[in-house]
Amino acid sequence: MFFKHVYEPGLAQASYILGCQATAEAIVIDPRRDIDVYLEIAETEGLTIRSVAETHIHADFLSGSRELAAATGAEMLLSDEGGPDWQYRFAHIGLHDRDEFWVGNLKFEVLHTPGHTPEHISFLLSDTAAGEYPVMLFSGDFVFVGDIGRPDLLEKAAGLLNTKEPGARQMFQSLKRFTVLPDYVQVWPGHGAGSACGKALGAVPSSTVGYERLLNWALQIEDEALFVQELLTGQPEPPTYFAMMKKLNKEGPEIVGGIPYPARLSLTRFQKLLQDGVRLVDTRDKFAFAGGHIPGSLNIQDNGDFSTWAGWMLDYKEPFMLVAGEGRIEDLTKALIRIGLDNVIGYIPDLNNWSMAGHELEILEQLSAHELFERLAQAEVYIVDVRNQSEYDESHIPGAIKIQAGQLPDHIADLPIGKPVVVHCLSGDRSSVAASYLQSQGHKHVINLTGGIRCWWEADYPLERAEKREQVIA
Amino acid sequence: MFFKHVYEPGLAQASYILGCQATAEAIVIDPRRDIDVYLEIAETEGLTIRSVAETHIHADFLSGSRELAAATGAEMLLSDEGGPDWQYRFAHIGLHDRDEFWVGNLKFEVLHTPGHTPEHISFLLSDTAAGEYPVMLFSGDFVFVGDIGRPDLLEKAAGLLNTKEPGARQMFQSLKRFTVLPDYVQVWPGHGAGSACGKALGAVPSSTVGYERLLNWALQIEDEALFVQELLTGQPEPPTYFAMMKKLNKEGPEIVGGIPYPARLSLTRFQKLLQDGVRLVDTRDKFAFAGGHIPGSLNIQDNGDFSTWAGWMLDYKEPFMLVAGEGRIEDLTKALIRIGLDNVIGYIPDLNNWSMAGHELEILEQLSAHELFERLAQAEVYIVDVRNQSEYDESHIPGAIKIQAGQLPDHIADLPIGKPVVVHCLSGDRSSVAASYLQSQGHKHVINLTGGIRCWWEADYPLERAEKREQVIA
Amino acid sequence: MFFKHVYEPGLAQASYILGCQATAEAIVIDPRRDIDVYLEIAETEGLTIRSVAETHIHADFLSGSRELAAATGAEMLLSDEGGPDWQYRFAHIGLHDRDEFWVGNLKFEVLHTPGHTPEHISFLLSDTAAGEYPVMLFSGDFVFVGDIGRPDLLEKAAGLLNTKEPGARQMFQSLKRFTVLPDYVQVWPGHGAGSACGKALGAVPSSTVGYERLLNWALQIEDEALFVQELLTGQPEPPTYFAMMKKLNKEGPEIVGGIPYPARLSLTRFQKLLQDGVRLVDTRDKFAFAGGHIPGSLNIQDNGDFSTWAGWMLDYKEPFMLVAGEGRIEDLTKALIRIGLDNVIGYIPDLNNWSMAGHELEILEQLSAHELFERLAQAEVYIVDVRNQSEYDESHIPGAIKIQAGQLPDHIADLPIGKPVVVHCLSGDRSSVAASYLQSQGHKHVINLTGGIRCWWEADYPLERAEKREQVIA
Amino acid sequence: MFFKHVYEPGLAQASYILGCQATAEAIVIDPRRDIDVYLEIAETEGLTIRSVAETHIHADFLSGSRELAAATGAEMLLSDEGGPDWQYRFAHIGLHDRDEFWVGNLKFEVLHTPGHTPEHISFLLSDTAAGEYPVMLFSGDFVFVGDIGRPDLLEKAAGLLNTKEPGARQMFQSLKRFTVLPDYVQVWPGHGAGSACGKALGAVPSSTVGYERLLNWALQIEDEALFVQELLTGQPEPPTYFAMMKKLNKEGPEIVGGIPYPARLSLTRFQKLLQDGVRLVDTRDKFAFAGGHIPGSLNIQDNGDFSTWAGWMLDYKEPFMLVAGEGRIEDLTKALIRIGLDNVIGYIPDLNNWSMAGHELEILEQLSAHELFERLAQAEVYIVDVRNQSEYDESHIPGAIKIQAGQLPDHIADLPIGKPVVVHCLSGDRSSVAASYLQSQGHKHVINLTGGIRCWWEADYPLERAEKREQVIA
Repeated sequence: MFFKHVYEPGLAQASYILGCQATAEAIVIDPRRDIDVYLEIAETEGLTIRSVAETHIHADFLSGSRELAAATGAEMLLSDEGGPDWQYRFAHIGLHDRDEFWVGNLKFEVLHTPGHTPEHISFLLSDTAAGEYPVMLFSGDFVFVGDIGRPDLLEKAAGLLNTKEPGARQMFQSLKRFTVLPDYVQVWPGHGAGSACGKALGAVPSSTVGYERLLNWALQIEDEALFVQELLTGQPEPPTYFAMMKKLNKEGPEIVGGIPYPARLSLTRFQKLLQDGVRLVDTRDKFAFAGGHIPGSLNIQDNGDFSTWAGWMLDYKEPFMLVAGEGRIEDLTKALIRIGLDNVIGYIPDLNNWSMAGHELEILEQLSAHELFERLAQAEVYIVDVRNQSEYDESHIPGAIKIQAGQLPDHIADLPIGKPVVVHCLSGDRSSVAASYLQSQGHKHVINLTGGIRCWWEADYPLERAEKREQVIA
Repeated sequence: MFFKHVYEPGLAQASYILGCQATAEAIVIDPRRDIDVYLEIAETEGLTIRSVAETHIHADFLSGSRELAAATGAEMLLSDEGGPDWQYRFAHIGLHDRDEFWVGNLKFEVLHTPGHTPEHISFLLSDTAAGEYPVMLFSGDFVFVGDIGRPDLLEKAAGLLNTKEPGARQMFQSLKRFTVLPDYVQVWPGHGAGSACGKALGAVPSSTVGYERLLNWALQIEDEALFVQELLTGQPEPPTYFAMMKKLNKEGPEIVGGIPYPARLSLTRFQKLLQDGVRLVDTRDKFAFAGGHIPGSLNIQDNGDFSTWAGWMLDYKEPFMLVAGEGRIEDLTKALIRIGLDNVIGYIPDLNNWSMAGHELEILEQLSAHELFERLAQAEVYIVDVRNQSEYDESHIPGAIKIQAGQLPDHIADLPIGKPVVVHCLSGDRSSVAASYLQSQGHKHVINLTGGIRCWWEADYPLERAEKREQVIA
Repeated sequence: MFFKHVYEPGLAQASYILGCQATAEAIVIDPRRDIDVYLEIAETEGLTIRSVAETHIHADFLSGSRELAAATGAEMLLSDEGGPDWQYRFAHIGLHDRDEFWVGNLKFEVLHTPGHTPEHISFLLSDTAAGEYPVMLFSGDFVFVGDIGRPDLLEKAAGLLNTKEPGARQMFQSLKRFTVLPDYVQVWPGHGAGSACGKALGAVPSSTVGYERLLNWALQIEDEALFVQELLTGQPEPPTYFAMMKKLNKEGPEIVGGIPYPARLSLTRFQKLLQDGVRLVDTRDKFAFAGGHIPGSLNIQDNGDFSTWAGWMLDYKEPFMLVAGEGRIEDLTKALIRIGLDNVIGYIPDLNNWSMAGHELEILEQLSAHELFERLAQAEVYIVDVRNQSEYDESHIPGAIKIQAGQLPDHIADLPIGKPVVVHCLSGDRSSVAASYLQSQGHKHVINLTGGIRCWWEADYPLERAEKREQVIA
Repeated sequence: MFFKHVYEPGLAQASYILGCQATAEAIVIDPRRDIDVYLEIAETEGLTIRSVAETHIHADFLSGSRELAAATGAEMLLSDEGGPDWQYRFAHIGLHDRDEFWVGNLKFEVLHTPGHTPEHISFLLSDTAAGEYPVMLFSGDFVFVGDIGRPDLLEKAAGLLNTKEPGARQMFQSLKRFTVLPDYVQVWPGHGAGSACGKALGAVPSSTVGYERLLNWALQIEDEALFVQELLTGQPEPPTYFAMMKKLNKEGPEIVGGIPYPARLSLTRFQKLLQDGVRLVDTRDKFAFAGGHIPGSLNIQDNGDFSTWAGWMLDYKEPFMLVAGEGRIEDLTKALIRIGLDNVIGYIPDLNNWSMAGHELEILEQLSAHELFERLAQAEVYIVDVRNQSEYDESHIPGAIKIQAGQLPDHIADLPIGKPVVVHCLSGDRSSVAASYLQSQGHKHVINLTGGIRCWWEADYPLERAEKREQVIA
């Protein structure tokens, strides 16, 4: 048996490629959309990808199943559980609870494990060449390392009302099927630490049934009501793009057939596009952006959270351009393709030519914690905290208005006016997205607290706690 | 807890880096000698490497513990078990059975698990931030996925007589300590499939105690004598360089302090070195080598077995040169450094300049299975099978003399003379090493069966089995 | 004034980009079809390409004028001289003798200089910002460094009968316009050493009018008849693809709009295409090819002559595949695009997967000069010399049949049968193309003299001279 | 004859490699210190470098003659003209006026052409294989395209008093030797546009004797006194490192024997070095630097002027570190090695780890032209113009104090205090060097006019001219 864990850190997303060496056949579970990684592994190992399977309709990335099937002719094995609202809308082989399928000597048993989503299934694998014992469970967003999938995404991100409590109760039942599996079975989930699909995911890629039974918080609660309450508390805000992902993954993502890398734009063409109002995403770091950027551009830094913030801030239907170094175009385009942002029409590698053509750059003012403290004391500025609810609740700067960064586009009218607005988060990255967004919308006086609340803490300035929540907008 | 499995496929060697995020400290277990991989992970994750540990004195690669300690100031945690002959000869912190050491919140318990080697220890890890239960066993060459470590290396490779049976018995006892561990504990071994340190290693990187208890062949045998016999049967020939590795790892490998990549040689300098008798290793593929090579050069192809064959065929004390493309120098140098072959003094990227300077290239004659069959029928050639004993035993070409490829240097005098020698293995790679070696030693008429015995099989020519073993030389 | 000489060594082809810094405008003269090189220079220098000009309808590469005009909106300045048969068949600005055009402060004067072709023009540049004196002549294929353009291409390559002598006479007249230019004018021609567009081109990129007047052989002959005779003697055979280039360049090459790099083929797809009879071009070196290749493949080595041999041997209408390393695909595709071979449908990086799938490779037998001598003495083989006429005339192996490598496809029926054929050239490269072609056409016993006649010379074996030409086929 | 112009745009420095194909020998003229470029060309062309020659003791870069001689065994052909103060202090073959030397069929005639420096020689080349006529003059810093070498460097940069006028007179005489050369001779000088070794160098790489005679300003003046006056007027300030280059080139630069690339520094080691006071050079662009940098760092942007500003601002004896992306280390190290800055001890790729470790970055305040105008009107700031004298003379902002950027270290005490200082140049690059230097020296309130005086011009604010020069400090 061949096995490889393929991890995409930007979305904390795990997929798996498994092969039977006896028949040279392979299966990919939960593929991402930039599928070259699977094709290369298969080619190197001398395996042919015959099957693609999904644990559920993903909300946080665009599935690569159709892409992979188109490239290889593989069959698509997808859940037909979950009722009429949760059926894939394109041709596939439907799976039901207790179905079995084989890839060479590898036997996969289907377990319907709803909770995160109604159609969610898990795969229990036995390597029959070794013996008739289960070796691994591919648990998708059902059981993570140290956590379980959240049942509230549909409600929060897709606006499906009254689904999160029934989901939590389904999850309670599904976990009973998990705990009866043998202790020794390895558990390989769909996400690692940092995903918005759970709240306490560990940084270790896999676990075992026995270890999770002992230590996973969700398996320690015997009372259903208590379980439901715990599960629904403190979940991070899901990105708004999740709703679109759900929809596209159900209907079938468009097949790209090879990644179309954007071209470098000549200065002439770039200026034309800028005049035409094409959105510009500046991927340089927050300090470079603050030091000077093209007016109207949005700062989504080229780091691990690039996909997520692109998903929050960009419109799926509109074209956009990048400021990004030559060497980064491949990775960035893949990161965008992964969540369906296929509309990148070009890039410029830096701001030199634009600035040499005589344009002045726009600055994003920055403050230190000390300066902020003084200006707050003089009531010279407003402060907007763009972190998650749970972070805000734990402690925040007195008087800070709370609007989660990704929800700013919906609440820009709620911002106070008349004074400069200082935007902050934990360490200045999310607030650079938020501040650049406000600037791009014509807000006259925006300031970024580049060091974030972390510097405020270190300077030991006063804080408020959860009970003072009157300033929460979103 | 941070965890990363770092796998080097050339030697099928696994090392591990683990970190405690609360204290930002990390440990590396069984590091290889090209340590940049660990430094980069630590830098990216914001961890400081405070400790390095080894499960045992390795025989198949040069340990990177001293290199890593020199680069980071980390402490070295090494076994003091195993008796006076098996003590590390350089400064370290000695570990004994049942010792405990900590890296932040991570607790490591030492288990003395002799068998593969007398001083072998394993590490049982608990992530105390999560709870007081063991999560992983780092089993080194004690328990693999589906196999266990071999106790005969010392005798076969290092000439320590009468050590393999006592080792096998120690292993029998050590396994009793393994089977009492909880089923759910993950098992992360020191090797994967393809290593010469075991005979049936799986291609899956990890397992669990419970799964191994059910399926590992070694845990199914209750009778000690039977166990000893099984364990000592059918082990592949260990490379001769293993003895040197053992010695160097015990005494302390030299610290290189950054990898010294060899320079491209001008034609003038290359010719001078060639005249001076410096060994030339041609890393091109077997077909290119057969089509034309510089007389005297050795064909060690740039594939997954490069380190191993370099270890078999090259002398640790003598300098050598490479034929290798520019883009491959970094990887190849690392592959050599890993087993202590630090004497590469330069390379040429191809044979163009040498051949344009008017030198004719030497050809290595190749045969197809069909041609071999006909020439054997006419008794025109001898045939030498350079595979392992177990492969030869299973089936071989009638009349084939068996000398394992790596042992050819010691048995060149035993080769028959008077007729051309056809060298073969499974698929033509090992035999290209062997044939090029014979040519380089002045053997006049050597032929490579480039398709290997595989083509003989497909053509359904006659075969002999194990009982006919009179032709075995080495 | 900005000036850059852009040289493509594969076709020995020169193009030029010139700019006026005062107006930030640029012109490209004789662009090649992979135009990124011009776009990058213009972008770096802050220039906008406003004009593209050609000296004549090229025969040896596909013009990039339309490609560049499409990408930048530049105007195309092309010759309207030469009569009705030599008119470009697509929209352009027509140039006539003594026309002037400007790019910022740069003044270009058009000189009609027929001879190489009837419509040929040259451009005399003055940098009027510096003064009203001519600084450079862009002479295309009119005057080279040490040579002049050949007037026989149309007849030899395009089958336009009775054109070479009138062309030679036109050239005689055109040179009179060259010699009256001031001595100090720099001469920047369309080709350097190695092009098939002249016979004695120097390896220095530029010259001056005065120096050429003193030393260019063509400017030393005062008698027209003698001049015509000299000029038409000893010209190398032009590649057959020249006819197609002429045609396409006149009608207007297809615009590719970005280079479409071929994809790596999976083994399955590759085997399917091979079965379908798709031509395979193996770009590895001649020794590797001889050592083993996929039956039916053609050996066009990835060296400076790749474009030329691809042009000789491949069919413009048929798709083909490559064996070529990942890192070489970009350069090779550009080399193909340059001569209009746009039909590469994919590649495999090496022969490993194909050979691991159980296929035996085909060998191309090789001989040393010594072996050839002995086998010729026994009359065991025929010998075919695939060099140019002038090389053959100077000296050849006794009895050698002469068929220039590129003309083999038209003369395969003229080859002797009944004995093995040894193919040779100067040093084994052209003969590897030829031998692989013969093998691919089913010729049973072909041998390559890999060291070429060069080794025969060094061994001092007998030779014949020009007078013995009875064996010349093509 | 083989000929290649090797141009290094950072220093606008030209070197030449010439070869005789008949004897496969080559010569390099005026090599730079990173010599791999010559070795690669020679290797590719199959030439052996037998000779290295210099036109003079260079002031603007470290000569690679000794490096190249050490790597290849080539002879060094250096001027013995110019008197006792201008003799090379290491072993070489001395050249005198009218000496001849040969490289295969290439004949080089030595012309003593003092003026730029007393020992300056030029080389007149004839390709005797073609004929006995001179083809090229390698004119070093004697005659450039459109300009001539400056005779004032020794006085300005090396403090050799009263040398510039005698030098100018020598130049007047030397030019008489130039004008008698044939018109058709190509002129290949030692520098292109942008070098500090002349004042009006053209952007075209080469010229001819006849064209220069017509258009080079220096060849139009017949009166010696007028010539001297013209030549000494308006020369740009030479970098202070020129004195060191002169000294090292005369005594013999240290041989590095392969370029020692600096290592990436771990955060721990970086912080240690920073605390120890090791100078940090931040090579990011001016906007990123302004947006945030590590306190004490110097902003020398990674652009074409990197070598020059490093030469101005860094101390030759002291170690320093870089902030520079991984992919830029090779180029930057070479750029430093070229001017003898061999003390780079390491680098960090960006500021992420440093800033994540909780350190706040320092900001460099930026102003727009409009803001500057208003603050000047209120007399709130001083303004320092760091451009060259000639730029300042042409027009400057009223009241601007002039200190050329590179001379700031010697005049920091002359800066006014009590108000913020706005530093400006043409377009914000030199002023970023200057401003960062002031900040690094503890100056409390420094501001960069990032758009430079260019923006001031565009806004049509008032200017002063040359006659108001009372504010010139350096």
